[in-house]
Amino acid sequence: MATTFADFKKLTAHAKDYGFVFQSSEIYDGLSAAYDYGPLGVLLKNNLKEYWWRSMVQLHDNIVGLDASIFMHPKTWKASGHVDAFNDPLVDNKLSKKRYRADVLIEDHVAKIEGKLNKEIAKAQKRFGDAFDEAEFRATNGNVKRYLGQMEEINKRLATAMTDGNMEELRQMLIDLEIKDPESGAADWTDVRQFNLMFSTQLGNIAGEEGKLYLRPETAQGIFVNFLNVQKSTRQKLPFGIAQIGKAFRNEIVARQFIFRMREFEQMEMQFFIKPGTQMEWYNKWKETRMKWHRALGHPEEKLRFHDHDNLAHYADAAVDIQFDFPFGFKELEGIHSRTDFDLGAHMELSGKKMTYHDPQTKESYVPYVLETSIGADRLFLAAMSHALRTETVPGQDDENNVRDVMKLHPALAPIKAAIMPLKRNNPEIVKVAKDIFNDLRFRFDVQYDDTGAIGKLYRRQDAVGTPFCITVDFDTIEEGENKGTVTVRDRDTLEQTRIKIEDLAAFIGPKVDMANLLAAAQ
Amino acid sequence: MATTFADFKKLTAHAKDYGFVFQSSEIYDGLSAAYDYGPLGVLLKNNLKEYWWRSMVQLHDNIVGLDASIFMHPKTWKASGHVDAFNDPLVDNKLSKKRYRADVLIEDHVAKIEGKLNKEIAKAQKRFGDAFDEAEFRATNGNVKRYLGQMEEINKRLATAMTDGNMEELRQMLIDLEIKDPESGAADWTDVRQFNLMFSTQLGNIAGEEGKLYLRPETAQGIFVNFLNVQKSTRQKLPFGIAQIGKAFRNEIVARQFIFRMREFEQMEMQFFIKPGTQMEWYNKWKETRMKWHRALGHPEEKLRFHDHDNLAHYADAAVDIQFDFPFGFKELEGIHSRTDFDLGAHMELSGKKMTYHDPQTKESYVPYVLETSIGADRLFLAAMSHALRTETVPGQDDENNVRDVMKLHPALAPIKAAIMPLKRNNPEIVKVAKDIFNDLRFRFDVQYDDTGAIGKLYRRQDAVGTPFCITVDFDTIEEGENKGTVTVRDRDTLEQTRIKIEDLAAFIGPKVDMANLLAAAQ
Repeated sequence: MATTFADFKKLTAHAKDYGFVFQSSEIYDGLSAAYDYGPLGVLLKNNLKEYWWRSMVQLHDNIVGLDASIFMHPKTWKASGHVDAFNDPLVDNKLSKKRYRADVLIEDHVAKIEGKLNKEIAKAQKRFGDAFDEAEFRATNGNVKRYLGQMEEINKRLATAMTDGNMEELRQMLIDLEIKDPESGAADWTDVRQFNLMFSTQLGNIAGEEGKLYLRPETAQGIFVNFLNVQKSTRQKLPFGIAQIGKAFRNEIVARQFIFRMREFEQMEMQFFIKPGTQMEWYNKWKETRMKWHRALGHPEEKLRFHDHDNLAHYADAAVDIQFDFPFGFKELEGIHSRTDFDLGAHMELSGKKMTYHDPQTKESYVPYVLETSIGADRLFLAAMSHALRTETVPGQDDENNVRDVMKLHPALAPIKAAIMPLKRNNPEIVKVAKDIFNDLRFRFDVQYDDTGAIGKLYRRQDAVGTPFCITVDFDTIEEGENKGTVTVRDRDTLEQTRIKIEDLAAFIGPKVDMANLLAAAQ
Repeated sequence: MATTFADFKKLTAHAKDYGFVFQSSEIYDGLSAAYDYGPLGVLLKNNLKEYWWRSMVQLHDNIVGLDASIFMHPKTWKASGHVDAFNDPLVDNKLSKKRYRADVLIEDHVAKIEGKLNKEIAKAQKRFGDAFDEAEFRATNGNVKRYLGQMEEINKRLATAMTDGNMEELRQMLIDLEIKDPESGAADWTDVRQFNLMFSTQLGNIAGEEGKLYLRPETAQGIFVNFLNVQKSTRQKLPFGIAQIGKAFRNEIVARQFIFRMREFEQMEMQFFIKPGTQMEWYNKWKETRMKWHRALGHPEEKLRFHDHDNLAHYADAAVDIQFDFPFGFKELEGIHSRTDFDLGAHMELSGKKMTYHDPQTKESYVPYVLETSIGADRLFLAAMSHALRTETVPGQDDENNVRDVMKLHPALAPIKAAIMPLKRNNPEIVKVAKDIFNDLRFRFDVQYDDTGAIGKLYRRQDAVGTPFCITVDFDTIEEGENKGTVTVRDRDTLEQTRIKIEDLAAFIGPKVDMANLLAAAQ
């Protein structure tokens, strides 16, 4: 069952209507590529962050946490290479005055050729039916061969220009390929210029370059510059890791796809410091560990895959993405990178501080290698939500209400663990029992008291936000009889209703929504 | 027992040595007024944030959460008054080229006069002993009367100049009072200029004023601009609140006192939307609620006080601070402000969107009033740490080890809830039992496995970071006898050691370190 674009529009509407994600500053017609997490969104996001944090920091005695500030000494970004090499090639269209990434314009052009190619294949498939052999067709059909050749040539030329930082060549490609502004249709381009992706600002008490500060474009460097302080204060021995959750900022020219690519986003990064030479062992170990962690959330096998990087960044000797099948296709969710001693080495050189580790066993001193796992919290949110949200027919129900929207989130991730509903909101006895249950459970986990409609309607609303349990206080609860002192607990997924004694509620629901179970499942 | 400056220096050293707080970018000689939370600091800070979040969001069915982005539409800051009125009066010394806040230079001058006054009083106190009547002395002594007169006059003049935004008058005061640069000793001042405290940056795809973005100077506005979306998606009725934790940024010229005043800091704000006319009732209610919340952390009566604002901000009709007795004196920890309909009204006017609430009971529509509680997470951290950290003599111990540094944090706040220590780290049987305990408990709360020294030394180290329980696995644990299968649990505060069955450990420690108890105590 493929997720379609229509589903994605439905998802963003659902996210707004139920208070998961709002467009930032919507009353001012919005700030593009910025979003706010609403009342239920912030709970879901906090649960995802807790799942990551506890798996990393609480469950590993050799991983410790950190929370470095967003502002860092500007030399940090000189050492890391961001000042000199964290650029996008931008070009303006002279007619529309719109600014574009030259490489993205060229990539879009390649995608158009690929579209034609796919059309050709689809046509042939229709014509030949079962007899169609795609591999043979690709190898023999003239048009297809031409398209493939064009794509290969353009991709190669683009890769070379990007590696060389050759802006003139990028502009020449726009001209040679007759690429037009999607807005104005004009092919009248300015020069292509390198544009640094870091947001900069100015300290008030210092004028000029001296007072220039950057908003960090990644959280990783906060870990590297603190390596010595952390190692010393925790007395950790290699291998050990430092984990951090925090905001990062990139001045993306093309920011799109809802919360997938924003200018302000949240990273969850863990840098694992290891002995040089052991990096491939740890690379494979962390690949496996991280994939297991994602799978524990209940994502089906086919929604997650590894994708090796085609080109390695300047700091890496091995790199792979964990991709998720988002509503708009497979895209990076997490990156696992063997960063070697690039970062610590660069900081050592620029700061003059010795960033070495003395190995007490081998008596050697060396600059540790680093194995990084880096995941976008917002992307993880989008993955969880897009996987969980579905429309389904309620089995065994024949009336007009037999279709429901339901978010099948893992119970440990659900924003609300249980909703407490009085069957009659004007019956003082029923209301009192319901309030008492609410007042007890709210100390244990996130619950909601809901008396704003008929029970059937409230069930649907709780389904739509992923609440795993609905507790209803009815007349049986308060009247003499075998069910006195019991309530019904309705399961989001099975729709079954069970009568439970009020004093057993916490023990019945608690373990099912406990993060510890999810953590254990990921081990 | 007053906290002295020496204690504050000890606190910052302790914070670094044990991994609570590091100077930001220390390897590059630091970024001034920016700090990073280390491995134990981030745990303590997260616990404080959780205490606040759960008291607000989890325990109130009429308070919901939000996580708005740092970047907002620039019109937000026009409406809020920050673009036009969020200024500091800055002045440069022509000789030293240093920049100062003119009002702070004048306040420092007043403090010097107050110092002379206090000296005069101390002298008289010494001379007259028990017979000294300070009130009478103040009313009659010539010098004291002169100092008081000077102070009153300067304060009055300063307040008027600040209210009027009269920069010429501020400069005239520097000249009249013969205020000199503390650096160069020169009295050669430039003009005083208004300097906006917001950090600004530039969106890459838009040139000029259009693309100017601010880093939010407060989280509150993220709540106000989302009022409609939150109210609609949650179907809350007045009174209800929106709570948010997040970073804010202010381009302070004078940022000092460790993490007390930083340029990047974290706020925990709750905006409570109410019916106009009920604000004083809610103001008093929230004053009481918030003070109770602080007291539940175990701060003694005399360390917390209310302090009414002398001058109300343009948006407020009542305002009070909860002040804490920091190592450098009583300072603001939390603010409680009756903001009226200033913010929603201003956003309504500038955006043209109707920000009214329709009261289903009275059938009226109105712009809600707002009652704000706003606390600095970093200040709360500093308050918790400075209160908890102390040096004490261990009772009943006579050797040279009878002095210990201990952090008497509330157990629910402690970064590490329990440390598990094998008595012999090379005894495989003891180590196995200790590791098994560690592997069980780590799913429940933050624990540490520690085998890096002799038990006595490890106890001291755990005291110094506030760990409430130390679990030791010894020979009795593994050898036949009545204590087989038991371990000792040592209490940080009483120093008592109790033998507990291994299978009872979670039930023994769990409730004592559970945040739910702290939450209940604050009710």
